[in-house]
Amino acid sequence: MPRTVLPDARSSPRFAGIATFCRYPRLDDVAPENRPLDWCVFGVPHDAGVTYRPGARFGPRAVRDASQYVKRYHLEHAVDVCDRLSIADAGDAPVSPYDQRGTIDRVAAWAAALADPATRLFAVGGDHSIAAANLRAVWQRLGRPAPGLALVHFDAHLDTVDEVWGEKWGHASPFIRMIEEGVIDPAAMVSVGIRGPLNNAADLQFASTRGVRIIPCADVHAQGVAPLAAALAPLRGRPVYVTFDIDVLDPAFAPGTGTPCPGGLTTHQAFSLLRALRGLDIRGGDVVEVLPDRDAAGSTALAAAHVMFEVLALDAASR
Amino acid sequence: MPRTVLPDARSSPRFAGIATFCRYPRLDDVAPENRPLDWCVFGVPHDAGVTYRPGARFGPRAVRDASQYVKRYHLEHAVDVCDRLSIADAGDAPVSPYDQRGTIDRVAAWAAALADPATRLFAVGGDHSIAAANLRAVWQRLGRPAPGLALVHFDAHLDTVDEVWGEKWGHASPFIRMIEEGVIDPAAMVSVGIRGPLNNAADLQFASTRGVRIIPCADVHAQGVAPLAAALAPLRGRPVYVTFDIDVLDPAFAPGTGTPCPGGLTTHQAFSLLRALRGLDIRGGDVVEVLPDRDAAGSTALAAAHVMFEVLALDAASR
Amino acid sequence: MPRTVLPDARSSPRFAGIATFCRYPRLDDVAPENRPLDWCVFGVPHDAGVTYRPGARFGPRAVRDASQYVKRYHLEHAVDVCDRLSIADAGDAPVSPYDQRGTIDRVAAWAAALADPATRLFAVGGDHSIAAANLRAVWQRLGRPAPGLALVHFDAHLDTVDEVWGEKWGHASPFIRMIEEGVIDPAAMVSVGIRGPLNNAADLQFASTRGVRIIPCADVHAQGVAPLAAALAPLRGRPVYVTFDIDVLDPAFAPGTGTPCPGGLTTHQAFSLLRALRGLDIRGGDVVEVLPDRDAAGSTALAAAHVMFEVLALDAASR
Amino acid sequence: MPRTVLPDARSSPRFAGIATFCRYPRLDDVAPENRPLDWCVFGVPHDAGVTYRPGARFGPRAVRDASQYVKRYHLEHAVDVCDRLSIADAGDAPVSPYDQRGTIDRVAAWAAALADPATRLFAVGGDHSIAAANLRAVWQRLGRPAPGLALVHFDAHLDTVDEVWGEKWGHASPFIRMIEEGVIDPAAMVSVGIRGPLNNAADLQFASTRGVRIIPCADVHAQGVAPLAAALAPLRGRPVYVTFDIDVLDPAFAPGTGTPCPGGLTTHQAFSLLRALRGLDIRGGDVVEVLPDRDAAGSTALAAAHVMFEVLALDAASR
Amino acid sequence: MPRTVLPDARSSPRFAGIATFCRYPRLDDVAPENRPLDWCVFGVPHDAGVTYRPGARFGPRAVRDASQYVKRYHLEHAVDVCDRLSIADAGDAPVSPYDQRGTIDRVAAWAAALADPATRLFAVGGDHSIAAANLRAVWQRLGRPAPGLALVHFDAHLDTVDEVWGEKWGHASPFIRMIEEGVIDPAAMVSVGIRGPLNNAADLQFASTRGVRIIPCADVHAQGVAPLAAALAPLRGRPVYVTFDIDVLDPAFAPGTGTPCPGGLTTHQAFSLLRALRGLDIRGGDVVEVLPDRDAAGSTALAAAHVMFEVLALDAASR
Amino acid sequence: MPRTVLPDARSSPRFAGIATFCRYPRLDDVAPENRPLDWCVFGVPHDAGVTYRPGARFGPRAVRDASQYVKRYHLEHAVDVCDRLSIADAGDAPVSPYDQRGTIDRVAAWAAALADPATRLFAVGGDHSIAAANLRAVWQRLGRPAPGLALVHFDAHLDTVDEVWGEKWGHASPFIRMIEEGVIDPAAMVSVGIRGPLNNAADLQFASTRGVRIIPCADVHAQGVAPLAAALAPLRGRPVYVTFDIDVLDPAFAPGTGTPCPGGLTTHQAFSLLRALRGLDIRGGDVVEVLPDRDAAGSTALAAAHVMFEVLALDAASR
Repeated sequence: MPRTVLPDARSSPRFAGIATFCRYPRLDDVAPENRPLDWCVFGVPHDAGVTYRPGARFGPRAVRDASQYVKRYHLEHAVDVCDRLSIADAGDAPVSPYDQRGTIDRVAAWAAALADPATRLFAVGGDHSIAAANLRAVWQRLGRPAPGLALVHFDAHLDTVDEVWGEKWGHASPFIRMIEEGVIDPAAMVSVGIRGPLNNAADLQFASTRGVRIIPCADVHAQGVAPLAAALAPLRGRPVYVTFDIDVLDPAFAPGTGTPCPGGLTTHQAFSLLRALRGLDIRGGDVVEVLPDRDAAGSTALAAAHVMFEVLALDAASR
Repeated sequence: MPRTVLPDARSSPRFAGIATFCRYPRLDDVAPENRPLDWCVFGVPHDAGVTYRPGARFGPRAVRDASQYVKRYHLEHAVDVCDRLSIADAGDAPVSPYDQRGTIDRVAAWAAALADPATRLFAVGGDHSIAAANLRAVWQRLGRPAPGLALVHFDAHLDTVDEVWGEKWGHASPFIRMIEEGVIDPAAMVSVGIRGPLNNAADLQFASTRGVRIIPCADVHAQGVAPLAAALAPLRGRPVYVTFDIDVLDPAFAPGTGTPCPGGLTTHQAFSLLRALRGLDIRGGDVVEVLPDRDAAGSTALAAAHVMFEVLALDAASR
Repeated sequence: MPRTVLPDARSSPRFAGIATFCRYPRLDDVAPENRPLDWCVFGVPHDAGVTYRPGARFGPRAVRDASQYVKRYHLEHAVDVCDRLSIADAGDAPVSPYDQRGTIDRVAAWAAALADPATRLFAVGGDHSIAAANLRAVWQRLGRPAPGLALVHFDAHLDTVDEVWGEKWGHASPFIRMIEEGVIDPAAMVSVGIRGPLNNAADLQFASTRGVRIIPCADVHAQGVAPLAAALAPLRGRPVYVTFDIDVLDPAFAPGTGTPCPGGLTTHQAFSLLRALRGLDIRGGDVVEVLPDRDAAGSTALAAAHVMFEVLALDAASR
Repeated sequence: MPRTVLPDARSSPRFAGIATFCRYPRLDDVAPENRPLDWCVFGVPHDAGVTYRPGARFGPRAVRDASQYVKRYHLEHAVDVCDRLSIADAGDAPVSPYDQRGTIDRVAAWAAALADPATRLFAVGGDHSIAAANLRAVWQRLGRPAPGLALVHFDAHLDTVDEVWGEKWGHASPFIRMIEEGVIDPAAMVSVGIRGPLNNAADLQFASTRGVRIIPCADVHAQGVAPLAAALAPLRGRPVYVTFDIDVLDPAFAPGTGTPCPGGLTTHQAFSLLRALRGLDIRGGDVVEVLPDRDAAGSTALAAAHVMFEVLALDAASR
Repeated sequence: MPRTVLPDARSSPRFAGIATFCRYPRLDDVAPENRPLDWCVFGVPHDAGVTYRPGARFGPRAVRDASQYVKRYHLEHAVDVCDRLSIADAGDAPVSPYDQRGTIDRVAAWAAALADPATRLFAVGGDHSIAAANLRAVWQRLGRPAPGLALVHFDAHLDTVDEVWGEKWGHASPFIRMIEEGVIDPAAMVSVGIRGPLNNAADLQFASTRGVRIIPCADVHAQGVAPLAAALAPLRGRPVYVTFDIDVLDPAFAPGTGTPCPGGLTTHQAFSLLRALRGLDIRGGDVVEVLPDRDAAGSTALAAAHVMFEVLALDAASR
Repeated sequence: MPRTVLPDARSSPRFAGIATFCRYPRLDDVAPENRPLDWCVFGVPHDAGVTYRPGARFGPRAVRDASQYVKRYHLEHAVDVCDRLSIADAGDAPVSPYDQRGTIDRVAAWAAALADPATRLFAVGGDHSIAAANLRAVWQRLGRPAPGLALVHFDAHLDTVDEVWGEKWGHASPFIRMIEEGVIDPAAMVSVGIRGPLNNAADLQFASTRGVRIIPCADVHAQGVAPLAAALAPLRGRPVYVTFDIDVLDPAFAPGTGTPCPGGLTTHQAFSLLRALRGLDIRGGDVVEVLPDRDAAGSTALAAAHVMFEVLALDAASR
């Protein structure tokens, strides 16, 4: 008996049924024998935090659709994720489209109370501002450990701008806020995939003065997983959160996003980096900035579904 | 307290949540006080019956997505559908993608047993072959009345071809089969929207010799709802089924379908025709042939969602 | 010498050059002999007011691009708009993407001070909330006449919802706000193209109790321009504003919009209705809700550009 | 034995095979018993004549693909086109992409020599400039009758501009050239579907001073086929050519074209107008300006294929 | 005089003419001096074998269109394919859309009898199930050599599932069937590009227990062509068939396919692998799973056309 | 005070305003204190030179739109381009769509006279034939130095075909013409990214016999920037022009182009190659062959905008 029960493939092909993430059961439908849950996956259909192209509010729906063909056995880790973990789709978090800060607070509070105490949380955005909500929830569920969570951050951008047009909680600012709140420990934070152009040199300053380890995208192109692997030492043995902005991928691999930047990673490079996190204690994560209206063939949403699967497989492989 | 409970709009905007048809509750979630159900809506993700372009197996998913913005109050009938009727989304019927005839039988059996005895059934295809399954289920639930159900059939094509490439249950044949089975009474069948070109003159023969009333699309363009209204007399006072092939609409209004035919109806014309059915005793229905991969802006799936709403509103308006 | 100077067609084909609305000169480039200006056209790239699908912030750019092929002579009114009127593109109004109410105020203040005192204003949205800004500016420039401006309102929706998710200035509310402010005289307001489904019957109440004349879309389908023509009496001899939500068109004609509703108008019907306004004293206008990401062939933006041209031609024809 | 032999449907479904127009045989493959041919259909993959958006050189290929589902029996005329007429696909005419005038001459010479002396010619563009080539070929094959051919011209634009950027043979000029050459008799020419905006009032002058009958698109919207029917008297009993610019259709029905203009015809209106030509002696025709890159769902190419079928059916119905 | 005669480029640009694969002549048009043929290329427009997204039945048509720009001289092998080989387009094989097994048998029989005895066969799918048909035909034409053909298999998936929904001949099963029939020698089979996720660990078992050499996609990313080159020893000196599922490419390079999987190959990697086959005795091949409806820019069909060219060039280079 | 003044970000977000390249000021708007200009960027909306798919005339408009999100600080060169250089958008060059040679001459003359004597020129195409115009202008502004400019040429194709269909100035021929005119010194020309298939072996001859250094795309895949770096010696200390055909990128990265060729570069590879030019004396450049109608997500236009930025940054980094 697997821990996560999927639809009967004899009558329900992968193109059939009300779509949940990877066909995992809805939270309400999980059988008692599969509680406590290991992971809750949920959507945060919110994009009021963007500075350029909106539409990521439709991200959770697109990722649910695209994830129908994601299977359960992870070839490279040689692990059956559904055998090892009990996972559910908790639906979408409550959002207030006109209230940026309020939505972050509301989602955080809702996520903090989800499912069982030990259940880990994976959020599907929405824009990157929603990472703040899930980070806060994960941190709170762990008892607000000092000096904060370790963070592996995949992104083309640093997202540590203090304020844009008077807003401190937009998608350019989640990590400056979470560092301020003590949710993230900047000394245990790695940002990978960063590339230009930037607004100015000062953009790099906040992160680097706080001790964040920045791995430019060019370093991954030149050296593969080695720079990231080398940067993981301070994260070992601590609760880790993985945040994945889909725009860390090149627009060829992820055209459906709001602020695409050429020169990015391939999906293979990104999966290799994720697999290099094996051994870390992953307690939460997210994938954000999927914008379906720019995603003609659905490849961006599909990549995001695979990112979710890779993060879950990291935990499955470690049990 | 409405009979159909929709998500709380304060926390769940129309772009949020696991998508069900028109945000109606899943069948399992309907509260006892809202049973017995008036209508079950379900998908039939099956397109092995097509003769040209496949892909309608993804129709139910697309219609669920598009239907999120369909509201509950019908302006022209002045009725709140959710106040008047208890409706649920029963998910997708079981299908066997490699077995055309078997799928029809399997869907029919599954639908025949759905929900409460008096619940009426609305199917979202899938290709037009699935209409046979729902028709049979509706007829069976009504006690297999002789001489069969009355049928209002919206389509560019007659769908009364006996056999194509050795297959008698494909999407060109549902009505010849259902007439043969006694499920439909051809004397109480009206086909509206029919237009050319055809394979040959004989295509019209089966229908006309059995007494089916054919209203060519050109007649609707010339005379509006009058020809249909005039043809409804034999249907009054009898259980009626409404089958709506989305290709009755012009490709401008429904580009996302497998065998589009120019010269078709506008959505306004189609809705007017549907509204002219007010007063009939609608016991079941379907909307079929939505092919999302050809539906760049989602307008075909949206039209299909409105067709579903129009059919439900006919019943709501009559109660 | 025409009053509006277009690029030299001998060296600059319609696909060449930095795109301004209909190739009209930038405001800064208008020669003294063409001042005072008759009309300023400007963009309002703002969509924080939406309740469903965002993206109309890219509307002004798309309409500028699509308008390059809009020529200058209006066949049906038999008038050369550029000979008769001096028109300029004033660029885009200042917006604050995270501040819904603030943006309305800011745009209104900016527009109120544009160009010459007698210059009339045409805004290209952006979502429908920006109509409030331009309405206020037009009203102010006319000396805040009581009991407010007359309004011809093309839309699938009434846009008189008091509040959504705590926001009173979103795209569902511009006209309730402007009536409250005295900017619009509801007794001289006509809403044409309205259709269902609605949230509830009460949606109609605010408008109808205030004396707004509602012309359902079905009436236009049945009776053409007659219902609108009949409703114009209270508007004659008064300053009139025309607001055009592109979703009054059917999704076949305007797929690129955020809340499409089937059963709508054709472009021919819409242009006929606009042409029926000839003789009114048009002092301002807008076209809103163009969402380029859903507009595969650019036909929605093209329709919007023609709407702008039709409104300008109404004034040209009256001089 | 039909006069036009189509592929065996038992082994070659409509989605199979090397695509020819409507699955008609290649000219080289026509059996002797089906000679002489009644019609040759051929492509002219040329778009160097455009003034705005190019790409119609891919029109013939797209129309061949879209035409695979066009069947053989015309419902409204009650005639089997393939039983009545022997038709072939002659492939594409030779073109010189860098030589506008040279291509017209070359295509005309090639078409003049096609198939059998009595074979009629239907060209699929390409931009509208290629109509000049086919008109000249048809006229020549008929012995250059004076005072020229009668012409029914479907278009949003008059295409009688003398010269653009120094070029007299572009897609804005075919009919001024053919009138000058004596190929068309302007007194037997009808232009239907014309609409604005125009460059200036003079655009109408050439046509009207020569006696061309202009039926504005608005007249078709208001009065249907009557204005065209009334204008056909001078064409009866004379050889007639039908030229159909796909942009006479509204962009909702034909998004894939280079100079789309809203306010146009529906496909039903266009087909009704074409059917009103029954009884004329149709000796040649064309459909032009299909631009596949703007035709997301292929509906423009499909409409063009139906236009071709309607023209052939006019001849079939008259035999 | 080249062995393969292409259209005269002086009058027929690459965008002109009835489209055949790479503009090669139709089989019926090959001149006697170019017989015997070296290769027949043909389409198999069949997709009833799919388990997820259908539509590959339109693959042959799309590949013909995309291949028009594929030239004749192979830069890396320094060989003119058309000088060295006589190639023809044999059209599409006969298919029975409702009969999965029957179609395989029918295509195999048709292909076995094509052209001249020594002609080699290249099939363009259609889904991967059609590889079984062409494999069987090639094997039969070679006199059914034991222990079967050598096979180089490019794919994201192993396609050795025994049965899906009761069907043993679907696109997940061609190689298990062909091994059972003795057509393929598993000891001389290499599967390259395989990647996860899988349904379960057992998926790998059939192949590995039979001696199939599996080269995971990750190995190609890490080591390039070396693993494949090292695995070719058992194939040398034997008749080899190359089967290429387009989904071995990453969705960035091949979005138009039915079961895309991120983390795949680039086109450059794939071509490098194909070029590493130089020296093998290639007797047949295919490229499958091109799904045009998901291929917005046609890049998938273009990649498939290049794959076909690369396989033909391998043979040309060896003569 | 930066040398290039961008719009005030407080009121004009990146999605607002009349679009100029990278939001640089229009040439007419540059303040005296920012003269003399370092660079003029301008469009050449011309595509009459193509041999296959047209539409690049819309390239400048698409690149202006896509460039709005390109920021000013170059991360890898650590330089603020707008602080270091004064840049303006000079609009589009005059073109004659029906006159291929005339357009080249006209654009060259116009560009030769632009802005200040020392201003360098960057052109955005349009097809590759327009490179000849800008090359000639740059050469003339530098006093026609012998033996011509050094050239770094990024392309999938050599573009040294003497003549196509009688035209010597098309997009296959710019470099043969410029070498003939003495504008380019072939001994200081490097072509990088070249790949097959070709028409014949002779295609390579002209370039190689003149001493052009050809770096096949395969060499970049195998060895990175080294081959290019090694080839730059003859270019150092001389005025260099950079021409970038967007089809040097793989279709995955640049689907929107007229003659795409798989097996191409990633954007990261291309940017690395461009960055390796640091230290050269870049006096002019272009990016060409962006075809927006095939660019569903705008990623091709975005890549082109980044190419422009990379070239400008090379100059900024050297000052």
